[in-house]
Amino acid sequence: MTIPSGLLPEGLSDRLPPQAEASARLVRRVLDTVASHGYERVMPPLAEFEETLAGRLKSMRAQDLVRAVDPVSQRSLALRPDMTAQIGRIATTRLASAPRPLRLSYGGPVIRLRANQLRPERERLQVGAELIGSDSLAAAVEIVNVAIEALQAAGVTGITIDFTLPDLIDSLAAGPLPLASDEIELVRAELDGKDAGALAAISPAAAAYLPLMEATGPFHPAMEKLEALNAQLGGAIDSRIAGLRAIAKPIGWDITLTLDPTERHGFEYQNWFGFSIFAEGFTGEIGRGGSYAIIRADGSEEPAMGFSLYPDPLIDAGFGAEQPNRLFLPLHHDQSCAAQLRGEGWQTVAALTPQENGEALRCTHWLDGDEPRPY
Amino acid sequence: MTIPSGLLPEGLSDRLPPQAEASARLVRRVLDTVASHGYERVMPPLAEFEETLAGRLKSMRAQDLVRAVDPVSQRSLALRPDMTAQIGRIATTRLASAPRPLRLSYGGPVIRLRANQLRPERERLQVGAELIGSDSLAAAVEIVNVAIEALQAAGVTGITIDFTLPDLIDSLAAGPLPLASDEIELVRAELDGKDAGALAAISPAAAAYLPLMEATGPFHPAMEKLEALNAQLGGAIDSRIAGLRAIAKPIGWDITLTLDPTERHGFEYQNWFGFSIFAEGFTGEIGRGGSYAIIRADGSEEPAMGFSLYPDPLIDAGFGAEQPNRLFLPLHHDQSCAAQLRGEGWQTVAALTPQENGEALRCTHWLDGDEPRPY
Repeated sequence: MTIPSGLLPEGLSDRLPPQAEASARLVRRVLDTVASHGYERVMPPLAEFEETLAGRLKSMRAQDLVRAVDPVSQRSLALRPDMTAQIGRIATTRLASAPRPLRLSYGGPVIRLRANQLRPERERLQVGAELIGSDSLAAAVEIVNVAIEALQAAGVTGITIDFTLPDLIDSLAAGPLPLASDEIELVRAELDGKDAGALAAISPAAAAYLPLMEATGPFHPAMEKLEALNAQLGGAIDSRIAGLRAIAKPIGWDITLTLDPTERHGFEYQNWFGFSIFAEGFTGEIGRGGSYAIIRADGSEEPAMGFSLYPDPLIDAGFGAEQPNRLFLPLHHDQSCAAQLRGEGWQTVAALTPQENGEALRCTHWLDGDEPRPY
Repeated sequence: MTIPSGLLPEGLSDRLPPQAEASARLVRRVLDTVASHGYERVMPPLAEFEETLAGRLKSMRAQDLVRAVDPVSQRSLALRPDMTAQIGRIATTRLASAPRPLRLSYGGPVIRLRANQLRPERERLQVGAELIGSDSLAAAVEIVNVAIEALQAAGVTGITIDFTLPDLIDSLAAGPLPLASDEIELVRAELDGKDAGALAAISPAAAAYLPLMEATGPFHPAMEKLEALNAQLGGAIDSRIAGLRAIAKPIGWDITLTLDPTERHGFEYQNWFGFSIFAEGFTGEIGRGGSYAIIRADGSEEPAMGFSLYPDPLIDAGFGAEQPNRLFLPLHHDQSCAAQLRGEGWQTVAALTPQENGEALRCTHWLDGDEPRPY
């Protein structure tokens, strides 16, 4: 069976005007904002050796990668399903001796062979910033605030930031709320499912994690519940509490803050701190970030903090699409006048024949002598 | 053997600061310029069905494509080695009913599995504009001038445009300078090699093509030779001569024009008109364009004119790399002052610890109260 010439594979699609321009504008504004905070652009390649790329992708299955055999090296190549792993590679190899903290930004397409029901697209845009050499509280404050500023500069409103503490269960289980090693995954699963009865049924030790299920939702009430648990534990998570409070403090009133301390979906990399970004009217997150460790070539770890945005759902929903002023230039128009108007921000559409109709070409105005006139 | 974690496959590479930013800036300025002339952005996907993509790639061998089997459709997917074919697909399918002329622009990475000695990179940036629905002289004038204006807006100087007439040999051979069908390819090959003796030795009919070999080089002297041939042929190529003269006329004195009427390398798609773009100091072309035909789903043809730039060699050579003013912000700096300075174009680098040294972080200035001071 022949494939119709206009058919694209499932999960791969064209962006047409005006959404393509909206997408480019959003990426540009995000990258301009992070650049103003000292993050320097890097551009890793679309493909790498599968072996070196996959080693840095903790939660990725090899069969989800788009792969090809390299005729030069006879090795397997893989297309990047994520750019963060590539930034880590650059930081620990070619930029290993650059002074820390190292601030890098990036933006481009990522692709995977298999998608899932929740996210059927196989190619999407990723744009973000990574701060390498620190996972301190100061680094977290910077990254969260730069992410918010970048989205606001791109015109995104109704932003919600959901904080999480990805390694909280592990550290509680190893300390003040001990769990048997086979209980940890069960506790996580019931916390994920927010099933209090099932959590309590695991064991009395597991039941001690019930207060974490309550410490979820709008930031301030949830923090009060987390603080109550902390008091029960004799201040065992004092530093977590203080950290979350310090990160939240400089965030403006126009941002909704929530807490989900045991959320782990998408935080397979993160350690003490993670956050998801949502925008009003869009289901699913539009970005995420947090603290993590990059593995150096010698096996040692370097701390890092960063965020990535996945703006496609925003663009799909029509975000940022603008219809600019388009000026039709009849044949024999004044060329220097047209050039001047382009310099002032007009988009011009020059007639190629006497028959053309500017209005049919979606022009909003036409040039009459040296005067743009609306249609 | 394990691959060192920092090693990339041959022909795939990272762009680091400041070249990555220079590359993004160049692409941005080119796309902004073409947008000001009414070209609207489209973003086709990185991969398509191999069958539909390869059908539009006249000069591409299947084994040069990066391919993978699609687990959803069980069809072969291929990554785009070129974006022009995708623009043609969009124009004749999803935008088939959009009014003509249709002006579209695009920019992004393209990738191929095998490179060649001349161009060892397997991934490169392509950015360009296509005018669909016309291959007229007016369309050629617009495309050449928009390409020049875009490169100049990006800061490229020392531009040379080399014109060619891709289907000239075919039309001469079918008309005023008849050739046997098996002679055409021989004549082409000797014209490519600029071997006058070998050309004359093919046959007396082939020897009649010798004047075309002379009509090569700086535009005006080469045009005089082409006009002399035209006079011999009783004006058989009057319209070609007039076309080239009209395209050249509005081009500024700061652009070097050359003519190579029988050049065909890279012009497998083009019909009556083609051009290559060179920049002083860079071997090899940085772009090309011309007239061509898009095949519609029903097999009919639609005329088109366009250009593509491949700016990587410029960036590799250091073009456009700037070191911006970077302002170190000590701990407890005035945050509203820092925000104001970012708004004025400063890039700021905030201290995360009291120990940090702004100069070591390549800052050019530090914030002293509300005053940036140079290091």
